Amino acid sequence: MTEIDFIKKFLEDNIDYAREKFHDRASVTVTEKQDASDLLTEVDLTLQKRAVDQIRTAFPGDQIVAEEGEFSKLPTHPNARCWVMDPIDGTNNFVRGIFPVFAISLAFAIHGRTVSAGIALPGTGDIYLAEEGKGAYVNGTRLVVSQVQNVADARMDLDFGCISDRAAWLGRGRNLIAEGGQLRCHGSAVSALAQVASGDLDAFVHMSLNPWDYAGGQLLVEEAGGVASRLDGKTLKLFDGKSGVLITNGAIHKEILRIIRR
Amino acid sequence: MTEIDFIKKFLEDNIDYAREKFHDRASVTVTEKQDASDLLTEVDLTLQKRAVDQIRTAFPGDQIVAEEGEFSKLPTHPNARCWVMDPIDGTNNFVRGIFPVFAISLAFAIHGRTVSAGIALPGTGDIYLAEEGKGAYVNGTRLVVSQVQNVADARMDLDFGCISDRAAWLGRGRNLIAEGGQLRCHGSAVSALAQVASGDLDAFVHMSLNPWDYAGGQLLVEEAGGVASRLDGKTLKLFDGKSGVLITNGAIHKEILRIIRR
Repeated sequence: MTEIDFIKKFLEDNIDYAREKFHDRASVTVTEKQDASDLLTEVDLTLQKRAVDQIRTAFPGDQIVAEEGEFSKLPTHPNARCWVMDPIDGTNNFVRGIFPVFAISLAFAIHGRTVSAGIALPGTGDIYLAEEGKGAYVNGTRLVVSQVQNVADARMDLDFGCISDRAAWLGRGRNLIAEGGQLRCHGSAVSALAQVASGDLDAFVHMSLNPWDYAGGQLLVEEAGGVASRLDGKTLKLFDGKSGVLITNGAIHKEILRIIRR
Repeated sequence: MTEIDFIKKFLEDNIDYAREKFHDRASVTVTEKQDASDLLTEVDLTLQKRAVDQIRTAFPGDQIVAEEGEFSKLPTHPNARCWVMDPIDGTNNFVRGIFPVFAISLAFAIHGRTVSAGIALPGTGDIYLAEEGKGAYVNGTRLVVSQVQNVADARMDLDFGCISDRAAWLGRGRNLIAEGGQLRCHGSAVSALAQVASGDLDAFVHMSLNPWDYAGGQLLVEEAGGVASRLDGKTLKLFDGKSGVLITNGAIHKEILRIIRR
């Protein structure tokens, strides 16, 4: 089985489970990790365990990096074969949101770069898939980023993250807050990146991101014609999201970098 | 027919139309009003016209204030019987969003205060209704606001509005950006207020809001046990949203006012 076929099958097999648990969320077990905003559910754990077990069977020896527990450490060999997973991105929305803005992300990387990626949005039933050099698709339909040309006209997800990110937002991010056309914060980086890939959003910005939050979405957007970088303009690698992440339709990428540097 | 029965029937009659148009949004006619972020669709116009026609038949002589066209002027007699409508709140999300975060709001006011209100969320199929003194309900189930007690733990919709609102956000709003637990911006005030009423969000903040954006949602939240005020702490009246709007679960209301005043 190829990596992309594995990803596709895993998402197809699990998207209904996640959606059903969302609709039945009043009975889902939720625990706090570090504080009241950092939640973990039985659904995160179940999905991660299923993926880990299946990867170990299908691709023995591959590294696995994922959001929960012992898997959240960065890999010791960043260039080796590596799976990167967020079982539920937007756990707070999953637990408390009327609107189902949460996602499952599963990506396969080698040499520190994602080459196969999939995202499932259980709330809409959509599955996004991309392979390096082969385009990005939602439910089989090719994705193309938006054509919006100016920040003042753009619809952007400024992901304010946790409280520790806010000083950066009010520092280097403040001119983007001041000048962006329409600002959104959905609280799910993976969902926002699916929206950039599909052209529903024009940009996504985060001050400090974990690899499982963008490993899949970055490839999706790039294969849909968009651009990714760190906030200092350098190449965005899989394990350096702590330097900030900017992923856009391409057309407004340089303007955003200029605004942030000003 | 009572006002609340009229509101309920109007929302029930039109929620499917709005949802179907969202799913078929690629073929919906969209025009720009003042700029690329200020959109108007045929769905806004159709819903508003239907409501206006039916109000004029059922309640002849009542004033009507609504977002589109000639109806967007504030009433000449603010204490008289008045209907306040937003045919589609979150038009940008309706036009471009994967997630269906948009709403229909219809409220009836007298003496400058909403006494009957309804909100439909076509994306979820939910209809919210409230009458002054009689509680707030979603699909017949009583609503109660959240119990979150601290801003640092709170999940808040900071509605960044249009570019003209941003100086206020980076001025009096900056401490709230710095200290809020989880920040969201859904781009639909009406949808966010439904979420405060249901306890999915703990607070909604806007620097300058039109009456049709909160006429219904304010009553819903108050009847679910929450609190509304202007950002200066004074009573929030129906036609003074330009002084800023703070609508919360009540428990964190004073803390937010203190943070904003600091």
